[in-house]
Parts: sequence; C-alpha cells; structure tokens
Amino acid sequence: MALFSKRTHTCGALRSEDIGTRVTLNGWVDVRRDLGGVIFIDIRDRYGKTQVVFNPQRHAGAHQLAKDLRNEFVIAVSGVVEKRPEGTENPEIPTGMVDVLADDVQILSKADTPPFPIDDSVDASEDLRLKYRYLDLRRPVLQHNLMFRHRLYQVVHRYFDERGFVEIETPILMKSTPEGARDYLVPSRVHRGKFYALPQSPQTYKQILMVSGFDRYMQIVKCFRDEDLRADRQPEFTQIDVEMSFVDESDIRDLTEGLMRIIFKELKGIDLTLPLPSFTFKEAMEQYGSDKPDIRFGLKLGCVNELVKDCGFKIFSEGVKKGGTVAGFVVPGGASFTRNQMDNLVDFTKSLGAGGLVYAKWTENGLESPSEKFLGKDLLERIMVHLGGSKGDLALLVSDTWTKTYTILGTLRLEMARRLNLIDESKIGLLWVREFPLLEYSEEDKRFVAVHHPFTSPHPDDIGLLESDTARARARAYDLVLNGTEVAGGSIRIHDQTLQKQMFSLMGIGEEEAMTKFGFLLSAFRFGAPPHGGIAFGFDRLTMLLTGMKSIRDVMAFPKTASAVSLMDEAPSEVDDKQLRELHIRTV
Amino acid sequence: MALFSKRTHTCGALRSEDIGTRVTLNGWVDVRRDLGGVIFIDIRDRYGKTQVVFNPQRHAGAHQLAKDLRNEFVIAVSGVVEKRPEGTENPEIPTGMVDVLADDVQILSKADTPPFPIDDSVDASEDLRLKYRYLDLRRPVLQHNLMFRHRLYQVVHRYFDERGFVEIETPILMKSTPEGARDYLVPSRVHRGKFYALPQSPQTYKQILMVSGFDRYMQIVKCFRDEDLRADRQPEFTQIDVEMSFVDESDIRDLTEGLMRIIFKELKGIDLTLPLPSFTFKEAMEQYGSDKPDIRFGLKLGCVNELVKDCGFKIFSEGVKKGGTVAGFVVPGGASFTRNQMDNLVDFTKSLGAGGLVYAKWTENGLESPSEKFLGKDLLERIMVHLGGSKGDLALLVSDTWTKTYTILGTLRLEMARRLNLIDESKIGLLWVREFPLLEYSEEDKRFVAVHHPFTSPHPDDIGLLESDTARARARAYDLVLNGTEVAGGSIRIHDQTLQKQMFSLMGIGEEEAMTKFGFLLSAFRFGAPPHGGIAFGFDRLTMLLTGMKSIRDVMAFPKTASAVSLMDEAPSEVDDKQLRELHIRTV
Repeated sequence: MALFSKRTHTCGALRSEDIGTRVTLNGWVDVRRDLGGVIFIDIRDRYGKTQVVFNPQRHAGAHQLAKDLRNEFVIAVSGVVEKRPEGTENPEIPTGMVDVLADDVQILSKADTPPFPIDDSVDASEDLRLKYRYLDLRRPVLQHNLMFRHRLYQVVHRYFDERGFVEIETPILMKSTPEGARDYLVPSRVHRGKFYALPQSPQTYKQILMVSGFDRYMQIVKCFRDEDLRADRQPEFTQIDVEMSFVDESDIRDLTEGLMRIIFKELKGIDLTLPLPSFTFKEAMEQYGSDKPDIRFGLKLGCVNELVKDCGFKIFSEGVKKGGTVAGFVVPGGASFTRNQMDNLVDFTKSLGAGGLVYAKWTENGLESPSEKFLGKDLLERIMVHLGGSKGDLALLVSDTWTKTYTILGTLRLEMARRLNLIDESKIGLLWVREFPLLEYSEEDKRFVAVHHPFTSPHPDDIGLLESDTARARARAYDLVLNGTEVAGGSIRIHDQTLQKQMFSLMGIGEEEAMTKFGFLLSAFRFGAPPHGGIAFGFDRLTMLLTGMKSIRDVMAFPKTASAVSLMDEAPSEVDDKQLRELHIRTV
Repeated sequence: MALFSKRTHTCGALRSEDIGTRVTLNGWVDVRRDLGGVIFIDIRDRYGKTQVVFNPQRHAGAHQLAKDLRNEFVIAVSGVVEKRPEGTENPEIPTGMVDVLADDVQILSKADTPPFPIDDSVDASEDLRLKYRYLDLRRPVLQHNLMFRHRLYQVVHRYFDERGFVEIETPILMKSTPEGARDYLVPSRVHRGKFYALPQSPQTYKQILMVSGFDRYMQIVKCFRDEDLRADRQPEFTQIDVEMSFVDESDIRDLTEGLMRIIFKELKGIDLTLPLPSFTFKEAMEQYGSDKPDIRFGLKLGCVNELVKDCGFKIFSEGVKKGGTVAGFVVPGGASFTRNQMDNLVDFTKSLGAGGLVYAKWTENGLESPSEKFLGKDLLERIMVHLGGSKGDLALLVSDTWTKTYTILGTLRLEMARRLNLIDESKIGLLWVREFPLLEYSEEDKRFVAVHHPFTSPHPDDIGLLESDTARARARAYDLVLNGTEVAGGSIRIHDQTLQKQMFSLMGIGEEEAMTKFGFLLSAFRFGAPPHGGIAFGFDRLTMLLTGMKSIRDVMAFPKTASAVSLMDEAPSEVDDKQLRELHIRTV
C-alpha cells in the first residue's frame, strides 16, 4: 500500500560502486541551489546527505517539479547514480564522489521556513529552540548526542547482562517517603485523599530485591525530584541503578571500574588506567577542597597549621589553637598578578564566606605580602616552600574551620584553574571518593540527616562513635567522580533491622514514623537479609560529560526548563475540573 | 573491609571436579534436617542449592553453631567439597553429586518463620503474598519469570539495535491530553493550578522524533492509565514502543515478525513459520467472531444469510431483510449434549445479549431442533452442511446485527472450546488483524471516537468515505494477536496537518481544543514530516503468555492489586499537609 516511492538506499549509503544504479532516496531538502538551468539539492536523513541533480535537458519533468522544492521539504526522489564531474567531488562526505540524476520527485511533505536554521552554528535562544524542539533535534550535534546516548544504553545493558545482573523494573507509582528532596505526588482516584509518589530513586525496592534473593540487579530507570532546578538538574532524570548481594566495597569498585573501562574504550576509544585513584573524603577535602575533586590540573592544597600555630599573626595562630585550619595553595607564575587582579581575588574569596584571603608573592625582591609585617619574610618563605612554591609563584591562604577553609580553597582552586585556563579537556579525571561522613547536623532541621541516605552502613570501625560522636562516624559510601562532577554514588547498606532502627533514631525519625515510611523494608529484614550494597550512575550527566556538553539538556530528547516547563507541549498545563473532581482534589 | 566470609562459589556451582576444594558459600537455609548427630542443610541462592553437612565428629564447633540455624537464615558457610556417599546422590540437581563438609558457619541474618512456605505449591492468598512480596519473590516460579523477563529485555534491545533503531527516552512528566482513558495527574509546585500527566503512551513524542529525523526509534517504556482495573491490567505497565519513517504496513510487519521469530527461537526454542497468518478485521470477525481470534482450535463461524433469507422462520428471514446477519458454527460431536447442557448454552448465549440461540443436532434420527417446525429438516441439513457439520454434530446459530451476531458467536466459540477442552496449549496462535475501522460512534459521548487513536491514517481507498460514511472507513491499523490476546498494536500515522485536522474535526474535537491539546504535533507537521508508522507491544502481557502465566502480576516484580494498591508498601497513602500546601491543592 505504498503511497510514495520508498527508498532503496538511505541518504548516506551511495558510493562509487553504485554508479549506474537507479535508486530512490527519501529525506529532507537540506540545501537547494538553482544554478541557472540546473538545480542541485542535498537530500538529508539521519544517515547522511546525497547530492541530487535536476537537469532540464535530461529530465525536464523532474526539473520542473524541483522548482517548487524548499529547505526542509520531505521528498522521495528517484534517479540514476552518476559519477560527479571531475573537480566537483566532495571528499569530506562519504557520498561525495557521486550524485543522483533525478528523473522523478515526489513531495511527501512541505515545510514552512524554520524559525531558526537547522545547523550547529544556530544562535537562536535556547527557549526558542526548546519550543521548536522537533527542529532543534534535527541539528547534527543533538542527533549525535542522542545516538551516543543510544550506544551508551547498549553498552550498559550488555555489560551487566554478561555479568549475571537481572534487569528488573521497579514501580513509578510508589509510596511517598520524602527524606531530603520533595516528592512529586500523584493523587489517587480510587482512594480518596491518598497519593502515590514518583520515585526519587528505587532505593528501597532494590534492597527488597536483594532480600528476595535476586543477587544482582540493574535497571536504567527514571527518577524524579521536585526541587528548585539548577543548571544541571531536571525534574526527571535517568540513572543506572545497581545492587549486589554478598559484597563489600571492593566488589562494587571492580564492577564500576570495569564498566568505565568498557564505556571509555567502546565509545571514546580511550584506554583507562585501572585501578582508578581513590581518595578518602578527608583526603579529597584536604588536597582539593572538594568531595568531587577535579584532578585534571594541579593547585593542590596544603595545610600550614604546624608552621603558623605559634606565629605572631593572630588570625592564623589563634585559628589553629581554636581547632581551625590554615591552608592554602600555590599558583605557579602568580607573582605577576596585578594589584587589581589580587583585589579581585580577595573579593571573590570573601564572597565565598571567607573572612579574608592572605597571599604572598615570591618576586625578584623575595617574599612580598600585605601581611608581611605580621608573618615575616622568613615564615612566608617557609609556607611557600611547604606548599611547593618557588620564585615567580603566588601563595593563597585561608584560615577558618576545617570545613570552611577547605571548601573555600576548593572553590578558589577551581576559579584559578578557569581564569588561568589550566584544565586540559583532553584529560580524564576519573576517581573515587570514599568514607564520607555518615550523618551531618542540619541547622535547618535541628537534627542529624543522612549525608548519603538513611540506608547506608556505618564504617565498622566507627560503630562506637554513632551515639558518642555522631558527626565523626564514617559511612561505607563512595562516589565516582569524573572531571569534578559526581557521576555515581553508592554504599554498602545496612541489612540488620536493629542497626537500621538505630540509624532512624539518630536522625530523629521516631519508631512510628519509621514504621509508617519504611516498615516494609524493616519487616523484610526480619526474614533473612543478605549483606548488600550498590551504586547508581547519573546517566544524563555521564552522557553529558562523555559528549563534552555543558548542559544535560543537550543529551535529553525533551528536557524541561529551569522552571520545569516543557516549552514544546506547554506542560504543566491546566486541566478540566472534571479531572480534579474525580481525583477528589481542588486547587487553592 | 569484609565483615563476613565472602563466597568463593554460588550455591549452584559445585560439581564433582570441585571435590577436595575448600569453598565458602553464601545463601539462605532452604531446608534443615537434624538426623540425630549429623545436621544437613540445603543452602540456596538464585543459582541453585548445595547440600551442606555438619558432622559433630569432624567439626564439632561448626556443628554446634548449626544447631541454631533455621529456615531462611542467611549464612556464610565454609568447608571442603566431598563426594556424596554412594546412594545419596541427587541426579535431579546439578550440584547433586557433592556436598560440603562444613568447618565454619556465620549467621549473616536471622529469619522469623515466614508467613507462608517459600515454594511453588504455596496456597496462601494472593493478598498475603503481595504484602510479603519479598518472600513471594523467593519462590522458584517468580524467580524464573523475572529472569525470563530479563532475557526478553536483552533480546529486544539487541534486535532493534542491530537494525539501526535509536533508543530514546520520552518524558514521564508530560501534558495532559486525555482521549480515551483517564490520565494520572501530577500537580506542579512551581506553577500553581497546573498539572503534568503521566503518559498513556509516548505516541505524540515518538511521532515528533520522526519529524526530527531519527528515522527509527524504540523504547521499552512505562505507561500509565488510571482505569478501573481488570484482571490483566495494571495502573502502570510496560510497552516496547517502536516508530519508523518512510515505511508502509509491510515494513512494520516484517520487523515485527522478525522480532517474534527471534523471541520464540531464543527464549522458547520454537521455530515460527513466517509470514504469520493475516486477517482483515472483517475476516477475523466473520470467521472467529473476534478481533483477536484464538486460532489454536477450529469451530470456525459461517454466515447462512443466503440459505435462510427466504425461509419461513421470521427471526432469520426478517433479520436478513433488515440487514442483519444469521451465522453460526458447528460443534463436532455436540449432538450428544443433554437437554440440560443445551438449556445452559441457551442461557449463556442470552446472557451475552442475544435474543436467543437456535440449534440443531444431527442425530441417528436426522436433524433435530426445537426450531425444526419453523425451519424444516431439509433447511437444517443444508445449514449444517454449509457450516461443515455432519452426523453427530451440533450447529449453533444466532441472528442479530452483523456486529452482535459475530461478537456473540465469538464468545460462544471460546466458551465451547473451554468446556470441551479444545485449546491445545502447545500450539502458538500468532497472527495479524488489520484494516480495523478508523472511527466508531460512541453512544456515551454522542460522537465518533478513534478505534485505535486519533493519529491513525485512514485507508487510502476510504478517504472518500470519511465524511459520507464515516463508520465504514478503514484504518491503516494492525494488531498482533497471540493465543487470543492482543500483544501489539500499531498503525501508519497521519503526517499531514490538514488530514490530521480533519480527523480531529470528525471526532468533534474543535480547532481550538485540537490546538490546545496537540498543537505542538500539528505545528511540527508544518515543518516537513515524513510518512511514518509504528507499533507498540504490551511487554507484560507478552511475558505472561510466553511464561504460561494467567496474570501479569506474576511477571512483574511489584504489581498492584485490582484497586491499584501496593500491599507491600501501602501506596497510595496519606501525605503531610505541608506537601499538599506546597502543591497548592487540597483534598475534598
């Protein structure tokens, strides 16, 4: 029942070997040139482009029809493959040695002039492009990104299948147990006043699957968080969700590193060196000022407490005595920074919440610093040398609590790398951070909250600290970091209901609340739960980093804006009152 | 940081070759037998079972610990693999030639007595099993079904990948465009009074992807319908969603049949004969009384209008004159049915909405029928012969409108097959039904509604009927039917905005409403839309049929009940007022 001439080849298929064959191509008019008598078009589809020639001398009828063609028309064109005339070949594209001399053309669909040109140099606003997402998606970069994403799915599915993982779908309509971010809710029509929630992660379900004996689980799954969105967040996002029984950290590490090796090899042609570098949370903070360090450049931090604890500069010595930390890093060649640049850096550092920024330059005249009179040239030099600096360098120092000193320095370090263009984009900064704190005190909630999530196992050496020195207890948690971005996180879980209850209690979640929210998991632990752990990879973010994009919107087919709107279909939208009545809700 | 002895082997791995090796197994205590001195346990994991022996003479310490073991405890057990004593081998299981003489055992998790036994002969109610789904999922049949489902995912992903399909994720938070079933709604926090909807299918998005030039799309995707549930429905279900550009029905057919061939071959070891049988909707109705015929047994229907149109039996002759249909089928051997059985059949047929059931038996005494005096032995015999009957058979006849006659006969046909046990479960009844009606008049809505969905292309021969004889226009729609159940459905779509608008108009959807709901698709069609079509497979139902289950709940990890409740975690549930306030809604 073909109502049009179906293609014999795609627009990327024809080669010199096809010369003389009569073919039919289906696709979009990419470019149209009318050179006096002869009309040339490039016909485009996902697979490539082919040049088509309409010659009035050879096929007058087809040429007449071709006059109506415009960019983005969808056509079926038939003709004989010819060798391109000498000198007109295009070696840049695989079909560039041939063209098709059209003897017939059908217009399958006309096209209005697109609101922006269909190419990667587009300068239309992102909002306009999102509104016309179907046109934006025709651009080569988005076609490439979604094809790349497709290949990533395949590699991931195959990797886990080959290792005995079972792909299991967990529910999207689940119970609301907000702990951390807000749930998206779904009112129940059948059960008046009750709601489902969309999963922030399938965490409890995958643990249940371990209790059920599935041993190795994986799923590429949509998750949802109703948060105020930042640049790289979306209300719905995709994760590779993994859980294993009878394992410890080393099993998850080996599994993950194997996956990374295959992804980088197959999709990027890069051989990763394994095992990956691994830092404790403490090491990452003290060396890079971040729990997701970017190790593609230096500027490593150093603590100078020992050097300054007895010095005359009170901000330093008193700070150390009060348990604080004085630390800093050296900017190679930074001695040449102007006064203006330094003032700017001081302001930037203060904007991060620092009391101030102490700095010293090692110039031709020796050590120079606004704080020279408090610290002395000698101490300044010892600090500089301790931090690895030499003549021509700049040392930056901050004194505050351990957390603030390192956090501020970490941000400052990234900022310096950006300003000095120190990040080598061809490098791969892939590493582990492990042994995160288990709980942290939330000033807002006036209680301890889980740093990872409430099902994370405490470090066995720190069980004794849980009640006595809660904030110091470490978790059996680990993050995988790529180029300064967290791309996966996981933990060894609690599989003992008594310890799990203790965790809830430490977090101020009463027994009743725990039973209401997580009773099914606690109950499951009563019937024989294996030791288990897992990890979840941010699929969108991983794809973004691997394709070199700056936004996850560029690796999703239909992303939403920062205010969670789909500009193409205008979701969310108003709905009929009848729909709301059936759901027993009213808007207020 | 191992806190337990990690397994060296799974519980399904040990063989005679391992005799003499010291191993560690992790798993669940499946069975425990205390034979005087010696304790035997079977240790179980997903991979199998292994017998473990605790002998007080050989390892008194381990034996002492084993006394505490109970069913479903999770343990780590170490020992040396031994040959089982002559006569105690179990050839039924792959590990049956060996056992492990335990010298050490650790209890990793204790277990209460399960509320029902963990085996397939369980007679606990389904509600109890769903509440303790984590235990139910330990049963061999559910483990098998989810492993089978896993393999089905892999085969499907690979099949489409190898054929150049791009896997693309479409949004779960989309625009509400209810047309047919009810949407699940998600209130927006950021946009007061607005709502997202969960997709009933990614239909519009996959068409958009064709407009974007992705050419071949597939996704295994969750869909949602807030309907009053029937036995084989779930509020969330999974489909294999497929769309292709520049195709007609034959391309979808070949693709689908290729997929079915590989699924049956790889997962069931069955060679399908291709091409599959294909019926028009009219043929399916007139031969089987169903648009999803079960062809694993006979009892084919036949029309007898020509034989009865002038007969004296008014119910028949007047019926035909009024444009109705008299049809029936023959039950081989049915002449021996008792009076009681026949009364029962008549009642059953009336319960389907039939005015009555006319029947005739061909006995030793010739044709016998309660309607004999109206129809005469001669006509009865001609009817019987026309329907393929002979001595010993029973003919069943219904007279009503075309639709009612065949629908009633179709149900009666299935009922007879069930009563007479005619369905050969080893057969595979896989077939196409095509050329469905495009629109049908809804008495409830007082307008035409789409039989498939509003994006389905009319049959090119029937474009002329659209306005003049709407109900007679056929669609370019097709269903794949397996053993009397629809497992996939699709169509060639409209790709022309004028025709699409006409379709909306025929369905009483005004221009404004069409633009509000589907404006983005109509707008997309303005910029060059390729001819396209697709199909969607019901993943749960397909898995159910392939595993021989009677309910899709048996092929899903965490199904909901008929009232859309998850008995395990008690979703849906009440939520905090704070959550509702943030969403600007109130329950009523």
